[in-house]
Amino acid sequence: MENKENGVVLRPIAYIRTDFTEKFGIPRQSGRAPSLLGRIIFTPEYRNDDALRGITGYTYLWLIFDFTQSHMAGWSPTVRPPRLGGNRRMGVFATRSPFRPNPLGLSCVKLEGLEKTPQGTIIHVSGVDILDNTPIYDIKPYLPHADCKPDAAGGFSDTQTGYHLEVDFPEELLTVLPEEKRTAAVECLADDPRPSYQNDDREYSMSFAGYDIHFHVADGVLTVTGVDVL
Amino acid sequence: MENKENGVVLRPIAYIRTDFTEKFGIPRQSGRAPSLLGRIIFTPEYRNDDALRGITGYTYLWLIFDFTQSHMAGWSPTVRPPRLGGNRRMGVFATRSPFRPNPLGLSCVKLEGLEKTPQGTIIHVSGVDILDNTPIYDIKPYLPHADCKPDAAGGFSDTQTGYHLEVDFPEELLTVLPEEKRTAAVECLADDPRPSYQNDDREYSMSFAGYDIHFHVADGVLTVTGVDVL
Repeated sequence: MENKENGVVLRPIAYIRTDFTEKFGIPRQSGRAPSLLGRIIFTPEYRNDDALRGITGYTYLWLIFDFTQSHMAGWSPTVRPPRLGGNRRMGVFATRSPFRPNPLGLSCVKLEGLEKTPQGTIIHVSGVDILDNTPIYDIKPYLPHADCKPDAAGGFSDTQTGYHLEVDFPEELLTVLPEEKRTAAVECLADDPRPSYQNDDREYSMSFAGYDIHFHVADGVLTVTGVDVL
Repeated sequence: MENKENGVVLRPIAYIRTDFTEKFGIPRQSGRAPSLLGRIIFTPEYRNDDALRGITGYTYLWLIFDFTQSHMAGWSPTVRPPRLGGNRRMGVFATRSPFRPNPLGLSCVKLEGLEKTPQGTIIHVSGVDILDNTPIYDIKPYLPHADCKPDAAGGFSDTQTGYHLEVDFPEELLTVLPEEKRTAAVECLADDPRPSYQNDDREYSMSFAGYDIHFHVADGVLTVTGVDVL
C-alpha cells in the first residue's frame, strides 16, 4: 500500500478459488447459491495465523475484491442491470454492477471454516458470487448490529428477490458431476445465468467446476441437455 | 483507475464532509450515532446526475472509503480493539480496525436525500462514522436480500453491542451548540469516545462541528464540563 497522488494503490492480500472460470453463470449476488464454495488463499506476505485470531466467532465475512474482468479505461454513469431485462439504464451508484469507476466488488460470504494447508491457513466460505482467482483486497467480519438493516428498502432489486427458474436436471446428467458440486450447480442454474430474461429457444452453456453444462429455458423451466468434461 | 503490477490504483470519486476533523469521538461503527450527518460531494469528474438514477429507492448505502489517517508503511497481523479495553489482541481480519493491509473502510449509512448545489448533486447521509474530508472510492446500494443476515453471530463485538454511557450535558452548555447538532453530539458522547474503558478521572475533549466539548466520566456517567468554540 502506498499513497499515490491523492489516491491509493491496493495490493492483493489473497486470491479466491471458485468453480467459475467464466462470468456466465456466477450468481447475481452473494448468498443466491448458498452451496457454492470458495477457498481464500493468502499471498505469501499475508500468510499469518495471527491475522485470523478471533475470526471464527463470526458467521459471515465481507470480501472486498477486484472486478478483474471489468477494468475499463473510462467510466459510464449508467449501466443496464440484467435483472431489468438489460434495456433499462440505472445509475452506476444505484447498482452493484461490476462496471464502476473503481472496480471494487463487495460480497457477504458465509465462513465455513479454516484449514491449515501447505499454502498457509485457508478460509473456506460459501454463498460466493466471485470469479475463480479473483484478487481479494480486504476481509472484514460481518457485524450484525452495524450491518444488518431489516428496515432497508432494496430499490429496483426488490422486485426480483424471489425470482428463480425451475431446474430439470436429468439424473443421468447430474451424476456426471462430482456429488459435492451438484447442489451448487442446481442453485446457480435456478438463479438464471442468462444475460437477461430472454425468452428464446437458444442453447446455453455454463462452465462450472471443470464441466460444461448445456441447457435451454422454456416457460420458466431450465432443462439441462448435456454435461461435458472440459 | 488503471492496472498496476497485479494491483489497482483507486481514485476518489467523492469526499464526505462530516463534523469530525479528528478521530477522537467518531462513533465505533456506522449507525451508532444515527443523527450524525454527512454530505457526499463528488469530484468534478463524477458530478453526473445520471450516475445516481434510481438511488433514492434505497434506504441505506455502502461507502467504501479511505482510512486516511491509517496509511502505514507495513502491516500488523493483530490489533487491539478499543472495545476490548485496548489490551487484547485480535487478528486484523477479525476486526474493522482502520489499521489494515489495504486501508479501506466500509460503512453502511442511511440515505437522507439528494440536493442540487453549485458543487453538483450532493448526497445527504446519516449514521456516519467517518472523518471529515475522507476520500470515497465507491458508493453501492444496500441490498437487503443479500446484505441483511439476521442469523449472523458477531464474534467479540457482540458482547459490546448494548454498551453506552449515560450523558449529563447541562442545558446551558448544550445550547451553545447549534440546535441541529445537539442530538448527534449526545449520541457520540454516549458511544464513549475514550480510547478504551478507562476508569479514571481524566478530562477529555472531543472536537465536534467546530466546538471543543470537554467532559469526564465516572461510574458510567459522562458529564460535560465545558463547550468552547474552536
